[in-house]
Amino acid sequence: MLEIERKYLVKNTDFLKELKGKRITQGYLSTDPARTVRVRIKGTQGFITIKGMSTDSGLTRYEWEKEITIVEAEELLELALPGVIDKTRYEIVIENHTWEIDVFHGANNNLVVAEIELQTEEETFTLPQWIDKEVTGDTRYYNSYLSEKPFSEW
Amino acid sequence: MLEIERKYLVKNTDFLKELKGKRITQGYLSTDPARTVRVRIKGTQGFITIKGMSTDSGLTRYEWEKEITIVEAEELLELALPGVIDKTRYEIVIENHTWEIDVFHGANNNLVVAEIELQTEEETFTLPQWIDKEVTGDTRYYNSYLSEKPFSEW
Repeated sequence: MLEIERKYLVKNTDFLKELKGKRITQGYLSTDPARTVRVRIKGTQGFITIKGMSTDSGLTRYEWEKEITIVEAEELLELALPGVIDKTRYEIVIENHTWEIDVFHGANNNLVVAEIELQTEEETFTLPQWIDKEVTGDTRYYNSYLSEKPFSEW
Repeated sequence: MLEIERKYLVKNTDFLKELKGKRITQGYLSTDPARTVRVRIKGTQGFITIKGMSTDSGLTRYEWEKEITIVEAEELLELALPGVIDKTRYEIVIENHTWEIDVFHGANNNLVVAEIELQTEEETFTLPQWIDKEVTGDTRYYNSYLSEKPFSEW
């Protein structure tokens, strides 16, 4: 299905202190932006996700995802390209929208990114005061790119 | 899981005439031999398959496969790299082993390959008289390679 998302940097993470996050480990079998193949372990769940090229606006991208077992995810992660992503995900609901905030660790330490999923590209929403600049469609902030070229090396 | 297989060229296809094959269309999201990602439509079924690097012998390779819907397979095939493989698969049981015989079409026309799955690398079996030379582990006969460099261009 098509996913419509906007992505922002986060300038102040104080609001995360009272939330409980989930650790995410993910690697890539393909980092090609037109056919990205991701293997993810999130808490006790495994997932395989395939993403297509994003539209010109950078907001919309085909995404297919299946839950798999942890054992399968661990096996598939062994096949992944070098550069596994390690991050903690927090979720917060603001005015009927769920924001996903990813706090990166390891080679992407100090990077914090927030995403909101929308129903249409034109949908409006309130920007929380902890939001910094928008990076929607900036392929440097794709996790697949960060796995190859981590934030600490920029 | 680990798959142990041997692969051969086929010199005489007369024996296929009395068999009914299944058409297979498949494309690749990654042709990297260490993390091949294949999307297949076989008759009315869809599959996603991920294969790892083969062992030195060329006989054993990690393989993970999940059945998906035809609609999912068609969507994912739209993301595939250029060079979709089109072939007809026949199956024939000889002395407790199932041989899979692939008759290629399109750009791989005239290529016919037979595969047998084994329980161990040392397992012995009878070679049918239609078998030509062995090509196990020869990466040129990987379908992922044939999708990029079809037989007609060799």
